[in-house]
Amino acid sequence: MMMTYPKDVVVEEQGLRDGLQSEKTIVPTEKKLELIKAVVEAGVKRVQVASFVHPKLIPQMADAEEVCKRLPQVNGVLFSGFVLNTKGIERAAKAGLTHVAASISASDTHSRKNANASREEAEKRFAEMVKVGKEHGLTIRSGLQCVFGCRFEGKIDSKVVLDMVKKQLDLGIDEVALADSTGMANPRSIQEISTKAVELAGDRHVFLHLHDTEGKGLANVLAALAVGITHFDTAFGGMGGCPFIKGASGNISTEDLVFMLRQMGIETGIDVGRLSAVSRSLEDFFGKRFSGKMHRVMERDDIKIVY
Amino acid sequence: MMMTYPKDVVVEEQGLRDGLQSEKTIVPTEKKLELIKAVVEAGVKRVQVASFVHPKLIPQMADAEEVCKRLPQVNGVLFSGFVLNTKGIERAAKAGLTHVAASISASDTHSRKNANASREEAEKRFAEMVKVGKEHGLTIRSGLQCVFGCRFEGKIDSKVVLDMVKKQLDLGIDEVALADSTGMANPRSIQEISTKAVELAGDRHVFLHLHDTEGKGLANVLAALAVGITHFDTAFGGMGGCPFIKGASGNISTEDLVFMLRQMGIETGIDVGRLSAVSRSLEDFFGKRFSGKMHRVMERDDIKIVY
Repeated sequence: MMMTYPKDVVVEEQGLRDGLQSEKTIVPTEKKLELIKAVVEAGVKRVQVASFVHPKLIPQMADAEEVCKRLPQVNGVLFSGFVLNTKGIERAAKAGLTHVAASISASDTHSRKNANASREEAEKRFAEMVKVGKEHGLTIRSGLQCVFGCRFEGKIDSKVVLDMVKKQLDLGIDEVALADSTGMANPRSIQEISTKAVELAGDRHVFLHLHDTEGKGLANVLAALAVGITHFDTAFGGMGGCPFIKGASGNISTEDLVFMLRQMGIETGIDVGRLSAVSRSLEDFFGKRFSGKMHRVMERDDIKIVY
Repeated sequence: MMMTYPKDVVVEEQGLRDGLQSEKTIVPTEKKLELIKAVVEAGVKRVQVASFVHPKLIPQMADAEEVCKRLPQVNGVLFSGFVLNTKGIERAAKAGLTHVAASISASDTHSRKNANASREEAEKRFAEMVKVGKEHGLTIRSGLQCVFGCRFEGKIDSKVVLDMVKKQLDLGIDEVALADSTGMANPRSIQEISTKAVELAGDRHVFLHLHDTEGKGLANVLAALAVGITHFDTAFGGMGGCPFIKGASGNISTEDLVFMLRQMGIETGIDVGRLSAVSRSLEDFFGKRFSGKMHRVMERDDIKIVY
């Protein structure tokens, strides 16, 4: 059966947060601001710029306030901050953000190890986060981690996931993100869960946050497009790494996604060439190669590249 | 729309040919035979074991005859040899193979540069190859290169491609392979061309030979499955490299494909763990890392891997 696809897709660039946070070499604030400017100039309309977690936990994100206070003012561009608790929400609001991504895990074990709380406790904290966020006038995206599998628990019951999504929607969140934190999703599980999440969410957007750890990143995107998902998180160059799989790759690459979509006639508004230059400059900065493909292809001027 | 998928998929392992041929370090015949034994024991039912091209062109394949003469005899396993001309066909037959993959390019420029013949001349040679192959009682798969794009010409007219497929079928070939030699295919072009090729081929199998150069390998597989393609070429570890894009990755990884399919409930008969061990042993041999993902994931014994 031939598949049908949407005409437009929204991409949220998470390289500044999910990409950089796994790197030990601290990127200066000035450099981060340059990167943010460059991705916005490449046409990205949503950028996750920082994580408001404890600086001791992730030193790379210690300048979150400074970054947010110096963000460029561009019409139509939404900057997002990643938060794990009410403290993070308050910091994000104070730093001038209008939107946060509030994270919680669908895996009880992952929640206990990562957030030091059972899933049930984490859900109570999440409700508190939403309350505080709304008091500050923020729009809130929920970020549900380990939706498609957990490296500690294995498979996560989809009923648990969808029950959590429903409760989050009932709390009044503005958007939902289903995260395949470990890259364990496959096209079939993507379609099963996304279809039901989209039904629950109604006119609120459902994002997919995919990792390419097992190589299925863009196949999962394709499966998601076929069931009506039009919002995806990515990272330039395919940056980022799952802390549970050394040497494994990170998020799906922004350039790879945007290029595939453009070839398929699906518009994102993002310039692959300009974004590829951002990725390559970061590779130079870190002195290493990222796992994405298109930023590598785009540096060749001796071959035909067909959109 | 939810997609429907086949129950079984046939995988042809091409690591021994398309993988090794791009490596400068010569793999001893003994080691190649060990690899062939290992992939067969991992459940692979079709293996392309050698290329009958001039040894000066590809020194790695200079032992093609020796490899073929010493192949293990296993019921239900088909060994294939890659050929570019009638000389190659005769060598393959003499070495005891019963099946060959006869290659020709859909790109005129690529044909001139690679096979030293215009596309039209190459088609005449191809007809001669089929004639000679049949005289030797061989079954023949055509391998049509650059179907989805050429790094010299850019896009290739799908009418040219389908016309070539039709002519090859009329010559009496047994199977067709559409090769995305440069990794330029996208899910939409895969579906458009594959659908028509399957119609033309009737009860003869249409293989897709995909490269992951632009990161779309498994997305293209998914698109192909949805239009009824059930035969794919792969290489262990994602070995191989397009000669026109340095540093770019090679074939889609056998392990990545098999693992995704198994997660989706589609059987190949191949053991991902055993094949991953083959890839890692080859990485040790060459002292480098291949671009596939699952052979890396499978070496971890401290994380849950969910099928």
